[in-house]
Amino acid sequence: MEHGIGDIQYCEKLFADFYDIGSTENGGVTRLGYTEQEDKMHEMMAKLGTELDCLVDRDQVGNTYVMNSQDTDYYLIGSHLDSVIEGGRYDGVAGIIAGLMVLKWAKEDGLKLPVRVGAFRCEESSNFGCCTIGSGLITKEIYKQDIGGLVSKAGESLENIFRSRQYSLHPARISGIRQYLELHIEQGKVLEESGTPVGIVQTIAGPRRFKLYLRGMAEHSGATPMCMRNDAMCAAAEIILELERIGNKEAVYQSVATVGVVNNHPNALNVIPGEVELGVDIRGIESASLDRMERSMRELAGRICEKRGIEYLEEKTSDIPPIDMSTKVQIGLEQAARRLGTGSRKMISGAGHDAMSFAGICDTGMVFIPCMKGVSHNRAEFASIFHICEGARVIYEYLKGEIA
Amino acid sequence: MEHGIGDIQYCEKLFADFYDIGSTENGGVTRLGYTEQEDKMHEMMAKLGTELDCLVDRDQVGNTYVMNSQDTDYYLIGSHLDSVIEGGRYDGVAGIIAGLMVLKWAKEDGLKLPVRVGAFRCEESSNFGCCTIGSGLITKEIYKQDIGGLVSKAGESLENIFRSRQYSLHPARISGIRQYLELHIEQGKVLEESGTPVGIVQTIAGPRRFKLYLRGMAEHSGATPMCMRNDAMCAAAEIILELERIGNKEAVYQSVATVGVVNNHPNALNVIPGEVELGVDIRGIESASLDRMERSMRELAGRICEKRGIEYLEEKTSDIPPIDMSTKVQIGLEQAARRLGTGSRKMISGAGHDAMSFAGICDTGMVFIPCMKGVSHNRAEFASIFHICEGARVIYEYLKGEIA
Repeated sequence: MEHGIGDIQYCEKLFADFYDIGSTENGGVTRLGYTEQEDKMHEMMAKLGTELDCLVDRDQVGNTYVMNSQDTDYYLIGSHLDSVIEGGRYDGVAGIIAGLMVLKWAKEDGLKLPVRVGAFRCEESSNFGCCTIGSGLITKEIYKQDIGGLVSKAGESLENIFRSRQYSLHPARISGIRQYLELHIEQGKVLEESGTPVGIVQTIAGPRRFKLYLRGMAEHSGATPMCMRNDAMCAAAEIILELERIGNKEAVYQSVATVGVVNNHPNALNVIPGEVELGVDIRGIESASLDRMERSMRELAGRICEKRGIEYLEEKTSDIPPIDMSTKVQIGLEQAARRLGTGSRKMISGAGHDAMSFAGICDTGMVFIPCMKGVSHNRAEFASIFHICEGARVIYEYLKGEIA
Repeated sequence: MEHGIGDIQYCEKLFADFYDIGSTENGGVTRLGYTEQEDKMHEMMAKLGTELDCLVDRDQVGNTYVMNSQDTDYYLIGSHLDSVIEGGRYDGVAGIIAGLMVLKWAKEDGLKLPVRVGAFRCEESSNFGCCTIGSGLITKEIYKQDIGGLVSKAGESLENIFRSRQYSLHPARISGIRQYLELHIEQGKVLEESGTPVGIVQTIAGPRRFKLYLRGMAEHSGATPMCMRNDAMCAAAEIILELERIGNKEAVYQSVATVGVVNNHPNALNVIPGEVELGVDIRGIESASLDRMERSMRELAGRICEKRGIEYLEEKTSDIPPIDMSTKVQIGLEQAARRLGTGSRKMISGAGHDAMSFAGICDTGMVFIPCMKGVSHNRAEFASIFHICEGARVIYEYLKGEIA
């Protein structure tokens, strides 16, 4: 598909307006959820909405909405504006830009298409160890339990942060959504390697997350013979490699296992590691595979720690089942892409997205666009303006069909 | 051996006088080298020396000496009065107490035994990342290079600290030492587990230290299939376990290998670890064993990283050779223990000590006493007054034999 120069320029302008916020020295961005950097992103979005002659609203948890009508029965196009630590500029932002493009086209076409573009707070788990907080709270789909006790990287509880911002941990449930649509960069390399401009998501893999606490004995590294040690880091190393093996074994079911967090105490050259905390992330689209991985992890970690005289504690911090996207929306998006002459393929999402929060309350669909080498959550993340326009067009074309 | 109530009481008084200095809330002490807390320890030592009718002297780097004569040909009994951050009350202090006990006994016995008790500044590496500064400077054995550029935890250079205290980074070399003796807590559990009250050190293990830098690819933990990963932490885990294996293999030579420092980046639950820095400490008393360990580490780390597509860089940050104690002094201490009916065993020191600074300029010996569960560099550090008396008695008995 060809895009008009005006569309490309507007899309670039939107990207450029967000660009500097939270920039880090090494070329990436750090815009953690519920921090000043994320606030600035939301303010910028509000400004861009106003420029489009749209209304701007904010809900009880700090999510921002740009709306072309006050219609209480509307299509919601959403994503997020926070990032991981030293992340990239496309993850989340591309979806908000796509939403604003749709608003622009609807306005240009004088179309009576009630659209709200929603930016949901703290989609990434980087700040609180917990994802999709903004969308999860307002849909009441993800967080059945109270999450006020979660603590930010800076050491402040979510409860305190919400209190000082006058947000509510128990907001009214969002209503009136006809359908929820989200564009996101793939964060993998399937689209790039297959040369497909648009992916249509069938299922979002369910993350199960764990904290493993290992306690050995912090002793003098020079004065403690090898045979007298209870080195918590050596036990952790075995667990890390076992988890990799478990992931490899279940790869055929598109499952993955990752130890992303390793905190070592006291972390001194002359002290044997006494305590280690591991953060584990297991994902897949088949519950049976996830169950096997979880069971294996528990058994193996227990056995490794027992063998080494290490105390072992495990905490499950999240357990989101695999979530299917609406078949109706998948078919509609595929047809829209075909009408536009844009290549598309159905695929799974290994990453979690705000769309997970909405799938239980309304028809929900996701469009993926390629990102370079599949790199994401990294300063080297890159997606093309062309592909953002392409994905946004598919959503717009689909919505036009819906109201036709 | 039995100890008189007077000895036990005096030993307890000495311990109690030092007790409060640098106390921390959690029950430990922080007395970093060349800080006010260490100064207070030295002032207390001077006061205790004066109470024993001894002379007190201070050298050009701030070390304190308590002397029972102005004899320029003397036995030096030394250790240190600084501690690590939130450390214990016995590491170093026990050796100074032992020296003061020897002075007390020589006085009581009216013995013509020229003894100086020396407290050497900044033995721990906690403040400047560099150990045995006070003893190293005055013996000119450890620091061939200029160390004025070292920076304290509080951000001040050693050069500035020395200037403001009118110390010299290039002091006169200490002279007149007949022999150097040091009592120290073992900081391991060999004595405790074998039920031996006194250890006689044969060799102080030489630490070789390394930083290993591993760089893989930080990618999305959900969207990156297992087969497409370059996980730096998985490579690090393999290296950690290989180093443990290398240490176990060389344990027969009393060598040890420890990965005490593990820094993982970006250390987020949803990002595959992209960069890991490992701090490695290898110690042993045989250079051939240390060489093998270093070579194995390099080969295996290189091979592991190559296999996994991880960039690998290695930096050697210190290389102190194993230092032998005088055989003559070892035999003498052993005989002294036997005369007293005190059990002793020859052993190695895995930890570094001020004795390393003196071994090159005079006959040097070390006596170890047990510490509870081997715990040291920790607020839970504990040694008994009985064992301090026991070790000090062995040194006194040995010195009596020397002048007989």
